[in-house]
Amino acid sequence: MNYETIKYEISDHILTITLNRPDKLNAFTGKMMMELIDAFDHADADDEVRAIILTGAGRAFCAGADLSSGAATFDYAKRSDRPEKQGTPVTADGGMDWSSELVRDGGGRVTLRIYECLKPVIAAINGPAVGIGITMVLPCDIRLASEDARMGFVFARRGITPEACSSWFLPRLVGISQALEWTYTGRVMPAQEALDGGLVRSLHKPEELLGAARALALEIVNNTAPVSIALTRQMMWRMSGADHPMEAHKIDSRSIYSRGAAADAKEGVMSFLEKRPAVFSNKVSQDMPSFFPWWPERPYK
Amino acid sequence: MNYETIKYEISDHILTITLNRPDKLNAFTGKMMMELIDAFDHADADDEVRAIILTGAGRAFCAGADLSSGAATFDYAKRSDRPEKQGTPVTADGGMDWSSELVRDGGGRVTLRIYECLKPVIAAINGPAVGIGITMVLPCDIRLASEDARMGFVFARRGITPEACSSWFLPRLVGISQALEWTYTGRVMPAQEALDGGLVRSLHKPEELLGAARALALEIVNNTAPVSIALTRQMMWRMSGADHPMEAHKIDSRSIYSRGAAADAKEGVMSFLEKRPAVFSNKVSQDMPSFFPWWPERPYK
Amino acid sequence: MNYETIKYEISDHILTITLNRPDKLNAFTGKMMMELIDAFDHADADDEVRAIILTGAGRAFCAGADLSSGAATFDYAKRSDRPEKQGTPVTADGGMDWSSELVRDGGGRVTLRIYECLKPVIAAINGPAVGIGITMVLPCDIRLASEDARMGFVFARRGITPEACSSWFLPRLVGISQALEWTYTGRVMPAQEALDGGLVRSLHKPEELLGAARALALEIVNNTAPVSIALTRQMMWRMSGADHPMEAHKIDSRSIYSRGAAADAKEGVMSFLEKRPAVFSNKVSQDMPSFFPWWPERPYK
Repeated sequence: MNYETIKYEISDHILTITLNRPDKLNAFTGKMMMELIDAFDHADADDEVRAIILTGAGRAFCAGADLSSGAATFDYAKRSDRPEKQGTPVTADGGMDWSSELVRDGGGRVTLRIYECLKPVIAAINGPAVGIGITMVLPCDIRLASEDARMGFVFARRGITPEACSSWFLPRLVGISQALEWTYTGRVMPAQEALDGGLVRSLHKPEELLGAARALALEIVNNTAPVSIALTRQMMWRMSGADHPMEAHKIDSRSIYSRGAAADAKEGVMSFLEKRPAVFSNKVSQDMPSFFPWWPERPYK
Repeated sequence: MNYETIKYEISDHILTITLNRPDKLNAFTGKMMMELIDAFDHADADDEVRAIILTGAGRAFCAGADLSSGAATFDYAKRSDRPEKQGTPVTADGGMDWSSELVRDGGGRVTLRIYECLKPVIAAINGPAVGIGITMVLPCDIRLASEDARMGFVFARRGITPEACSSWFLPRLVGISQALEWTYTGRVMPAQEALDGGLVRSLHKPEELLGAARALALEIVNNTAPVSIALTRQMMWRMSGADHPMEAHKIDSRSIYSRGAAADAKEGVMSFLEKRPAVFSNKVSQDMPSFFPWWPERPYK
Repeated sequence: MNYETIKYEISDHILTITLNRPDKLNAFTGKMMMELIDAFDHADADDEVRAIILTGAGRAFCAGADLSSGAATFDYAKRSDRPEKQGTPVTADGGMDWSSELVRDGGGRVTLRIYECLKPVIAAINGPAVGIGITMVLPCDIRLASEDARMGFVFARRGITPEACSSWFLPRLVGISQALEWTYTGRVMPAQEALDGGLVRSLHKPEELLGAARALALEIVNNTAPVSIALTRQMMWRMSGADHPMEAHKIDSRSIYSRGAAADAKEGVMSFLEKRPAVFSNKVSQDMPSFFPWWPERPYK
């Protein structure tokens, strides 16, 4: 892939997406938003990609929104360089013709895209991650961080509000009280506080971070069936927001019935009984069951 | 009760349900599913039962689905020995006439039944618990485990997907990130990892596990009103999935009004003021308030 | 403010609401309920108030419902001294004409009011907190406690059920299993158990508790924009109960667009770039965006 603001590299079935504006501490731009969405689209369509690592080039993960426009940074009506602003019918105080779907929070378009992903997504937070730099990783499945990383939900210090659907994701990851303490204070915290609060799974020496993320990705890639993983991802995320377990039962029943009759299930059981590694043949590109997706639309588009 | 695959034993108002196919590591079968559902039906109807412990006979808790059918294990269309498969109108790729409610994930029928239970349910995980062996305990209220237990959400290693409504239960118990790491890798983990991840409440020496579970059950039985407990169970589980606290307020208001006028409330307050043990007289079999159940159906049936 | 059962004191933009019946261990009454609701109404309307601390006078936080009516304590139909009972059309077993909205759980009216609050709410649990004394603090954003505090969800020991929307709040704060263990046993626990279980954020020596709560409040007040905080509070609490992140995206998009064009955002970015403290000029009383509130009603009224 030929991107300007990110790198897209595949090896051992693991795609590494690297935020790549190191001289700007990988500050987030409209261009980066569009390229990230495109990268996840390609990853989902490519059976070679079985897990995704998201990290940053240089010493930062992502310093947040690029502030080079100064006071106009978040004033969308005065800017024409953001892909999400295109002839939008907005009113003075943020009233919006939502049906047009033209003015949308750019961070949210990225996180909604990651939410829809069919492959496991592991964030390797290699350095400072603030603003959209930290809310971007909330829909990732698992977050690892460097001991040197620092993180901050700084929105209220900049006079704006948390975005990128972080009000949905963050309380689910760390609980409502921790989510509020971090977004209320806007403090930039050391990695240890993020670990203690449940935001990241584990801390690593800087030079060992990517290796740890790859080891976890390989544990998935080397042992499990890709179609099972794609279904698992969407089942877990979507049912975590459902009111009643019956919603899960409806999908479980279809899934166990459908996947239970597939080649992968026969290989999974027989390889276990024969005490040998499994070789799964079903592919995400062509073997997802007919009930998938079971929701009406993919509204991040 | 006269069951083939489980034991049903009551003492001190505590029902112990024991998975009882020790020579098969208590592997789950369609028969076991039906007997578990029946056991919970009886427990709910019997005022002698005021708490339930679920455990396994022999060295295992439950080794998961019985794999003796080999490659056909999960291929429901090719099997006639599963109670949940009875003349089901299914299509080739898992499309299903859900209205018929005939092909249903058997694990989910058990966990939906436990979800509906009116008595506290404590799991005592005495040994290996994998597949349905571990998803079965997610709707239990509290999980204790032996230090020697091992647990695994192995579905993706068998080419199938998590079931038994685990996509609804597991993220609520351990958070979405931990739920995904365990279901993505399918790893079989030691008890300590389950404790650290929040899946179990406490670890115990093997010979002390049942005693610890009974002590906790007795703390409930000896101090509290059965009708209060039945209502508490359903209020907590159901409101944990509701969108807005007003849903709880509607039920709280009915419950405080109704139970506040009952004999149990008078005894609860007076025994406290008189510094003596309470003797509660209301019974689950006949004193549940008229607003209960406040949901339209019990769809596990 | 001139209240009988609480104190209302503002300094350094921090309102301290103190439950103030120390000779009764601050036991909860209908009068206290009405005064608490009124206090939060005033706090929301007063731009001088930018954070709220809730604590108790004397050695207790709140001993729960005032039991001076003995066996009639929770028997609403026999009492005329509770503001929530006013000509209510109720049936014998708690059936209720909900449309009248006249018989309502008093604790729930308080917690629903706190849920609607536009300022951060920090509980400083200075001593025993049982029954409504502990469920009252669940909708507070952050809970600090004295090492000497004791807490108990004692409802099932009194023959009634958890109230004050605690079935909605408690599982979100501590997980469903911990919530059930505490409400099933009704045990009164030491502060350390509450910390270990995630109910409180931190423990403090008694003489340092209020100072710690004030330090946290000041970290918010001194660094962030009040309108941002008001929006953050409602976004986080409400989206924590929403099914899908798209619900957050709809609000995020309006909020980033609206607040991004406001004076606070310009000041927030420029103060950061100029490495100086921000001075935010927007006010909660007049600058909340037109899309707020985005829900149809404020049903605690």
